[in-house]
Amino acid sequence: MTQSLNGEFDYIRDGREIYRRSFAIIREEADLERFSAPEAEIAIRMIHACGLVELAGHIEFGGDAAVVGRRVLQSGMPILCDAEMVDRGITRKRLPADNPVVCTLRDERTPQLAAELGNTRSAAALELWGMQLAGAVVVIGNAPTALFHLLERLEQGALPRPALIVGVPVGFVGARESKQALAESQLGIPFITVHGRMGGSAIASATVNALASAAL
Amino acid sequence: MTQSLNGEFDYIRDGREIYRRSFAIIREEADLERFSAPEAEIAIRMIHACGLVELAGHIEFGGDAAVVGRRVLQSGMPILCDAEMVDRGITRKRLPADNPVVCTLRDERTPQLAAELGNTRSAAALELWGMQLAGAVVVIGNAPTALFHLLERLEQGALPRPALIVGVPVGFVGARESKQALAESQLGIPFITVHGRMGGSAIASATVNALASAAL
Repeated sequence: MTQSLNGEFDYIRDGREIYRRSFAIIREEADLERFSAPEAEIAIRMIHACGLVELAGHIEFGGDAAVVGRRVLQSGMPILCDAEMVDRGITRKRLPADNPVVCTLRDERTPQLAAELGNTRSAAALELWGMQLAGAVVVIGNAPTALFHLLERLEQGALPRPALIVGVPVGFVGARESKQALAESQLGIPFITVHGRMGGSAIASATVNALASAAL
Repeated sequence: MTQSLNGEFDYIRDGREIYRRSFAIIREEADLERFSAPEAEIAIRMIHACGLVELAGHIEFGGDAAVVGRRVLQSGMPILCDAEMVDRGITRKRLPADNPVVCTLRDERTPQLAAELGNTRSAAALELWGMQLAGAVVVIGNAPTALFHLLERLEQGALPRPALIVGVPVGFVGARESKQALAESQLGIPFITVHGRMGGSAIASATVNALASAAL
């Protein structure tokens, strides 16, 4: 690194300029050709969140998700998250209609529900979303079990249908399979996913932030 | 995906078993040979957070950071974070000494400080850490500008010295360079980094959680 005598490095200190250059680099390096313009905007933010242009090859948009997500946020529907990091990563001032952001993982009822269901707390927590699920944006950024459980309960007709599922759990056990199940589902709910092991809370909240920015 | 007639998928629903299998897969697939045993434990958690075993090749531990980090957490020192997602990703119940976790990004003084410094809010926020920095664990999971600014101020002797720097900002502008500056620094402060563009809040908090688990 270039460093001056008084210990200062030579780097860009303007946040907006950093964003502008970052997105330009991603547009130049990432293969975004198969995406529509609104999809590419979201893919760029997802790549930005993980620093890996190769992510582009793993992203799938199902059923006009980019357009649906924007409209749903504009109409003020809630955003339901599986993890507190996802919740915290959603930039409130970008949300177009002061949309509620909900995470029930630490609700006091969740551990007991998990024991009853024989599943993780992440899976159990979504049972507490209740009627808020109807027409909402669901964001699963951490737990494959939450995505599996959501799909099961929707297929059983046991839960109200969300308008969009951002399903990007990360990891080595169940992540790939749960996202494959989302993409192969016959539910007809638009979705955004990252196939394979990659994903996570930062990519999840970046996806919502991208939809929100487009909706402003 | 295998799916039964009532809509249930075949997947592991036990959180501890998911962790156990995930770590076993990472140990099998990731090249961890150049790490000491305590370093490998941390690298495994960092890989787990992003779903990419190739991360191993980019991780660097400087100056016995794995051992120092564990000891510092045991002694109750604070954890100072650049981003709220990092803060939120640190599992409080794992911390060995109820360590304070601090993020000053949304402090009301930060925007004015950023304007005065001519730098980002992320960089300015660390000026508010004050004496808490002495002997602390610093975790930069998001902003290259925060890592650059921290290194500058430490080299100028303008801030108290932390005991450990977890420096894993993510992105396309400044991330690689700021982490290179950390690794090349003559400050003599132990560090953990991920070279290149990859990094981010999930990897950052996973690193702290790994140090905390080892310290319990």
